[in-house]
Amino acid sequence: MTLWGGVFQHPTDDAVRRLNDSLPFDWRLYDVDITASQAWAGALHRAAILTSEEHQAIVQGLERVRRLFASGQFVPAPGDEDIHTAVERWLTEAIGPVAGKLHTGRSRNDQVATDLRLWVMQATPALLDHIRDLQRALLAQAAGHVHSVMPGLTHFQPAQPITAAHWLLSTVAMLERDWDRLGQAAAAAASQCPLGSGALAGTPYPIDRTALAVALGFQQASSNSLDAVSDRDFVADFLHAAALLMTHLSRLAEDLIIYSNPRFGFVTLDDRYSTGSSLMPQKRNPDPLELARGKTGRIIGHLAGLLTTLKGLPSGYNKDLQEDKEPLFDAYDTLMLLLPVLTALIASMTLHPERMRAALDEAMLATDLADYLVARGVPFRHAHHLTGQVVRRAEALGVKLSALPLADYQAIALQFGPDVYDVFDFDQAVARRRPVGGAAPETVSAQINQWQARLGQS
Amino acid sequence: MTLWGGVFQHPTDDAVRRLNDSLPFDWRLYDVDITASQAWAGALHRAAILTSEEHQAIVQGLERVRRLFASGQFVPAPGDEDIHTAVERWLTEAIGPVAGKLHTGRSRNDQVATDLRLWVMQATPALLDHIRDLQRALLAQAAGHVHSVMPGLTHFQPAQPITAAHWLLSTVAMLERDWDRLGQAAAAAASQCPLGSGALAGTPYPIDRTALAVALGFQQASSNSLDAVSDRDFVADFLHAAALLMTHLSRLAEDLIIYSNPRFGFVTLDDRYSTGSSLMPQKRNPDPLELARGKTGRIIGHLAGLLTTLKGLPSGYNKDLQEDKEPLFDAYDTLMLLLPVLTALIASMTLHPERMRAALDEAMLATDLADYLVARGVPFRHAHHLTGQVVRRAEALGVKLSALPLADYQAIALQFGPDVYDVFDFDQAVARRRPVGGAAPETVSAQINQWQARLGQS
Amino acid sequence: MTLWGGVFQHPTDDAVRRLNDSLPFDWRLYDVDITASQAWAGALHRAAILTSEEHQAIVQGLERVRRLFASGQFVPAPGDEDIHTAVERWLTEAIGPVAGKLHTGRSRNDQVATDLRLWVMQATPALLDHIRDLQRALLAQAAGHVHSVMPGLTHFQPAQPITAAHWLLSTVAMLERDWDRLGQAAAAAASQCPLGSGALAGTPYPIDRTALAVALGFQQASSNSLDAVSDRDFVADFLHAAALLMTHLSRLAEDLIIYSNPRFGFVTLDDRYSTGSSLMPQKRNPDPLELARGKTGRIIGHLAGLLTTLKGLPSGYNKDLQEDKEPLFDAYDTLMLLLPVLTALIASMTLHPERMRAALDEAMLATDLADYLVARGVPFRHAHHLTGQVVRRAEALGVKLSALPLADYQAIALQFGPDVYDVFDFDQAVARRRPVGGAAPETVSAQINQWQARLGQS
Amino acid sequence: MTLWGGVFQHPTDDAVRRLNDSLPFDWRLYDVDITASQAWAGALHRAAILTSEEHQAIVQGLERVRRLFASGQFVPAPGDEDIHTAVERWLTEAIGPVAGKLHTGRSRNDQVATDLRLWVMQATPALLDHIRDLQRALLAQAAGHVHSVMPGLTHFQPAQPITAAHWLLSTVAMLERDWDRLGQAAAAAASQCPLGSGALAGTPYPIDRTALAVALGFQQASSNSLDAVSDRDFVADFLHAAALLMTHLSRLAEDLIIYSNPRFGFVTLDDRYSTGSSLMPQKRNPDPLELARGKTGRIIGHLAGLLTTLKGLPSGYNKDLQEDKEPLFDAYDTLMLLLPVLTALIASMTLHPERMRAALDEAMLATDLADYLVARGVPFRHAHHLTGQVVRRAEALGVKLSALPLADYQAIALQFGPDVYDVFDFDQAVARRRPVGGAAPETVSAQINQWQARLGQS
Repeated sequence: MTLWGGVFQHPTDDAVRRLNDSLPFDWRLYDVDITASQAWAGALHRAAILTSEEHQAIVQGLERVRRLFASGQFVPAPGDEDIHTAVERWLTEAIGPVAGKLHTGRSRNDQVATDLRLWVMQATPALLDHIRDLQRALLAQAAGHVHSVMPGLTHFQPAQPITAAHWLLSTVAMLERDWDRLGQAAAAAASQCPLGSGALAGTPYPIDRTALAVALGFQQASSNSLDAVSDRDFVADFLHAAALLMTHLSRLAEDLIIYSNPRFGFVTLDDRYSTGSSLMPQKRNPDPLELARGKTGRIIGHLAGLLTTLKGLPSGYNKDLQEDKEPLFDAYDTLMLLLPVLTALIASMTLHPERMRAALDEAMLATDLADYLVARGVPFRHAHHLTGQVVRRAEALGVKLSALPLADYQAIALQFGPDVYDVFDFDQAVARRRPVGGAAPETVSAQINQWQARLGQS
Repeated sequence: MTLWGGVFQHPTDDAVRRLNDSLPFDWRLYDVDITASQAWAGALHRAAILTSEEHQAIVQGLERVRRLFASGQFVPAPGDEDIHTAVERWLTEAIGPVAGKLHTGRSRNDQVATDLRLWVMQATPALLDHIRDLQRALLAQAAGHVHSVMPGLTHFQPAQPITAAHWLLSTVAMLERDWDRLGQAAAAAASQCPLGSGALAGTPYPIDRTALAVALGFQQASSNSLDAVSDRDFVADFLHAAALLMTHLSRLAEDLIIYSNPRFGFVTLDDRYSTGSSLMPQKRNPDPLELARGKTGRIIGHLAGLLTTLKGLPSGYNKDLQEDKEPLFDAYDTLMLLLPVLTALIASMTLHPERMRAALDEAMLATDLADYLVARGVPFRHAHHLTGQVVRRAEALGVKLSALPLADYQAIALQFGPDVYDVFDFDQAVARRRPVGGAAPETVSAQINQWQARLGQS
Repeated sequence: MTLWGGVFQHPTDDAVRRLNDSLPFDWRLYDVDITASQAWAGALHRAAILTSEEHQAIVQGLERVRRLFASGQFVPAPGDEDIHTAVERWLTEAIGPVAGKLHTGRSRNDQVATDLRLWVMQATPALLDHIRDLQRALLAQAAGHVHSVMPGLTHFQPAQPITAAHWLLSTVAMLERDWDRLGQAAAAAASQCPLGSGALAGTPYPIDRTALAVALGFQQASSNSLDAVSDRDFVADFLHAAALLMTHLSRLAEDLIIYSNPRFGFVTLDDRYSTGSSLMPQKRNPDPLELARGKTGRIIGHLAGLLTTLKGLPSGYNKDLQEDKEPLFDAYDTLMLLLPVLTALIASMTLHPERMRAALDEAMLATDLADYLVARGVPFRHAHHLTGQVVRRAEALGVKLSALPLADYQAIALQFGPDVYDVFDFDQAVARRRPVGGAAPETVSAQINQWQARLGQS
Repeated sequence: MTLWGGVFQHPTDDAVRRLNDSLPFDWRLYDVDITASQAWAGALHRAAILTSEEHQAIVQGLERVRRLFASGQFVPAPGDEDIHTAVERWLTEAIGPVAGKLHTGRSRNDQVATDLRLWVMQATPALLDHIRDLQRALLAQAAGHVHSVMPGLTHFQPAQPITAAHWLLSTVAMLERDWDRLGQAAAAAASQCPLGSGALAGTPYPIDRTALAVALGFQQASSNSLDAVSDRDFVADFLHAAALLMTHLSRLAEDLIIYSNPRFGFVTLDDRYSTGSSLMPQKRNPDPLELARGKTGRIIGHLAGLLTTLKGLPSGYNKDLQEDKEPLFDAYDTLMLLLPVLTALIASMTLHPERMRAALDEAMLATDLADYLVARGVPFRHAHHLTGQVVRRAEALGVKLSALPLADYQAIALQFGPDVYDVFDFDQAVARRRPVGGAAPETVSAQINQWQARLGQS
């Protein structure tokens, strides 16, 4: 039976029910719904609307309902439109008509807004932990490759040598922002408690909403009931944080997909994190990485979709807002499934420093060659131009920069001396990038130490 | 058991399987997968790769598998990564090792591309029928309201009188474009058959791909195997068509939501298509309309998400493409559920012509007043300005235009004569909009006849 | 002349230049680019790479360039690919070859990332002020309408009475979140300084990046150069904050558009904030509100677009990132133009309390009728059902609830007594919503006081 | 002066004007606006609303206005809200008050809808030509590389050998769909003429709208005026076609970016289509390709943005629709700039068949090895498994497949004979993919011939 109906002459059409009902996806709010209802019963009791006995009966009845849900014994009944209806229906079966007092002074509008916030508050920590785990896996790999020099790319062209550790730490840094941003989204969910906003106008009962909010873990009670029942900013914030996190995972995935192609061969994935082909017996495909990249579209689509749903709505609760849950749950589930797979994939992959080193090319030291001239007084802009000519000359002769005769160097700039050939040392070039944030092993090691200190504390 | 594995030393990680497996959503391709496999078996037979007996066994075995699926007896087994694996596994159980010959010369890459196209081809007609039904419901309501004059709005402000029929037909016209566009998306799916493209390079067996394509209902065989296995344009086309259709439904919904607010009161929804409130006993909420509007965001998000997934992919099949199915199925299911509800809602709603008429305001005839001056030789631009002054004068005096004394009219323009008061006839104003597309009853009636002729033939 | 070219045999194609050049939109970074370059020159000086004279010459030369830009004298020259090139070219014209020393140890990759962060840091405060102004305008209107009872809607159907002040404050509360969120986006921009990251690997010169970061107003130097040059999270954060702000503005706009339709007539916009029709002389259209609603799509599109651009990129700087600026600037400009218009529109609009009150309907007190029964011991759920029957009975008789005979009430529930008619007082009903967040005048007044205190301090 | 104002007591606020005015971007409609106005004048004349003299004066006056625009002499005046106002203002300056008769019976609502359709109809052919040019450039490169065997990838892992021609033709096939889809979008624009719909209700003058439509190049007059003024489906269709085209260009770009990295080295871009680095003298960056990929986000964002703007709008013209032009123009301009650059880049790039061949790996023939067993009676599924073991055995021994002793082969499957070594011929493997769509040179050559025939005719 639905929670309403007195005014209606005809029952709702079946297809309308199927369209309207949210129980198929909002059942997973049962735990927070019950928690919020217990708190509400407490508030009604303190406001002298429920007697102590009624309060006890409701709280204990709800606890039984929670156990039934948790043990998988829940079977939807006709009329169970949503989790709120289902819980109240079961509560009624458990404790009788007194259950009908629970909904006094509240509405499903404030109830669902509260539930969804509680769900985000409750669910986010596990996600934050998964981010930390991925960071740690990257950090562990980085710690072993502080001296593994590899080609650093810009525009996907060889640019300057870096190290594998430096490359891996770039994702650790990105994930740190994601950790913060998701934490902020959860804090946004916890910032105000809508319960007691009623349908839109507030509750007429003398509820201490501030105490209620605090009891449920919120910072404070919402300040405007009309806003409170329609505010889904926290869902958008969560989806935005999830979407940006996905773009970072997609970046990591793109690197690894390409680096595990044999033309690069910098990385080999463990068999457990690759899959095969139904046709081509030799294939080892980096499916989890491709899905990380591909599912980025899915989550960006969820964010765009939710914002579009919110756009142009008038104030107050509108049923359109029911579209908030599926993208939220799907984004969460996607990340909860994906992150551990990526963590294990990272932890189990093998880097190949020798193949990275073999991919270095002396032209990647052209900037260092320009710096050589700078050290001899040539303004950088001019040194850059002269070095470009050196590269072109070497290309024309088909030789490496270190094999270009000194005469050719000096024909381009007299500042070149015999020590120019010292420039062509990849390790030294990396080691020079010593200021904070640079690729130098000592700098990266210090960074690793800092990360270990921070991630260990988390 | 998966369809691959010979090269692997370690089994796939369980979480990777959960991430990778598509069976939870692609099981619904079973019917088209089997149809395509039967056709492929036929092609292998004609190419002398299967004997007649093998061919028969496979075709009949597949038919048994189809029946098992159709009767709901399918239970996934470990290793059933996707519908293709599941069907081959069950086929093997049914007919033994000869089942292993079916996958000769094809790949899951061309197989799934073919299946998904067949699914769109098979599923779209029911959707087109639902659009037709909604058009017919609108048309039936329109037929009863050719003379129901109502305020026509632009910028949501009263603009000119139209009729309810004219308003309802605007959605019929929008839906006609949707019907075409979805038909084109289905035609795009049917335009080329990927089967026989193998993983990417084509099949080395002498398959008559053109005959195969035609046998499956396609226009032709795909011309480039590398493109064929990665082409998901038809999915994007379908989602685009679905998204635009949703924007039209959202427009209809927005109108009806507002018009069923008592301030307008132009429409009353039938109880079966409204729902109630858990708190407010008097409420009748137009939930299906709000969901039509809200779910528009969902479908736009699916389109944006798929395009984002496609963006930046290298050529050939990449696992990212697995993300094509869920948005497609969800868009389809959403429309298949929503459209019949809207059709019934439209068919059962009550329009209130008297409330529409009561909402008319003589200022909506200001354009006609300007046209009165035009008929007396005043250039329209000047007539427009003069009429604006008339409206302002009437506002200043707090009277309706028809109550403004002739002296006031003539103080503004001498062309105004005593017959100016004839302008203030809403029915005549509507009747003047006679050219094609206009709101005049005779024009709208002719249009209704044309629609009835067309929609009757569909 | 470009900043590179030594290695190239052929000049860049003209069309490529047009495609590549960012000066047409990044010129507006000139101020922050110059500020960052001055700071960089200082860092080079402290690192003994520039002499005091060189440092002075560069800093003063840059100041001259800034003045030239500020006075509108800048004319692009061929080869001015971007603002960095243009500034360096002009600096060279101003002070000669020593200008060529400025680019030592940095890259345009770290330069542009720094510039864009500085731009966000510099530009955001004005936007925050505009939000505050809009909040204050809403607050001022609210202060005058604490007792203006109006129909509160859910599902766009009459739900319960609220007040105009309560309605207006809901947007103040939304905007407060926007103010916070945009502030957080600016803080994200300021959280780390990329300057000194070079192209990707860090700088080889002994720059004190921490001092440099602080001097420019950042919290700290970026910790990983590879991440620093490609991190555009802060742009996405800004666009997300802008998109959510727009959804709130779209909500306000939607309300006002509908409420200014004469069927509601709750609001009249000032002539200065309406526009007319080229055809219909009587029209006053709420264009600014429609554009606020319509441009929400634009900004959501910018966010979806930027995230899509970021998706799937490999690490390091890629030219794709050049697509970050136009959506950022456009979102900013849109809001900077829109917000003051909305502020003035709100400040100048007239609310019509008498029309709001006339739109009230006793059925909106059905919840209060149920609460009447609750106070007499009926569990709310049952009271809700009984009250629904009362509403239905009144509808059947065609009378208002207050005109339904007591006998009819008591036929439904014996708990109804003669005092039931006291329920039908809209002011009392509103006044009962007294707990925090509710619509009661005393609660709303307290809220207004708090807002005034907070917004006055900002 | 605006086209309205009579009813207003106060002039529009300046900031509102800046927000509202569309002339900064809709000026480029001047040509189609004038064409449509001339046709409208003709229709008014035929309907006896304009005399022959008036008609002549207006048509000739408009022609003068067109020349002024075309010669760049247009200077906006205060009040020039949009191109329609500007044209009418200038027409009035040119021919006096008779200009004021032009706007009889039409509205800017139908005018702008007509203009935008005409613009799409007029602008699209050049875009279609650019697509054809890019196809031809790809085709020309393909014609030279029918025998250039290269690694074909799936999941970005080596899969099977294909040829460079086969790879290049995959994009030709994608572009063919884009050519069709953009053509359909232009056809959608041309499908119905809104002119004569007035603001929303149709025109009261006896205009022959069908003749008018045909004269302007449309298929027919719109059938419902309310729909006609608000229908922007054709813009969404165009943006969808543009977005999908961009995803194809992004795919081509992604391939080329990776293939021009020296680890692959399959492609060298001409210097004219690369750019350099301000820091690293050796760099040659594929900027146009990165922008092609990056701008895909931009165009997808435009599509999502427009659909979001359309979502939830009520019927009739709403000012929100003004947001249709900028994304349309920007998508068009982006493609018109990008496509010729890509065409020239493709035409001028150098492929390196020897590096492609060097990248082949015998494991890519594992499918052919399985097919060898199939030819000897082993069901494919079993052959696949056996071949996987062969690959693993060769990996374990660290030898190529062709160097694995026959004994090892036969230890895995007795069907292996001495002729197994014949399998390891990449050219033969490719040549076997002979059925339509396959990579075999003879098949690809036939395909090239067909493309040449088709593209030559275009």
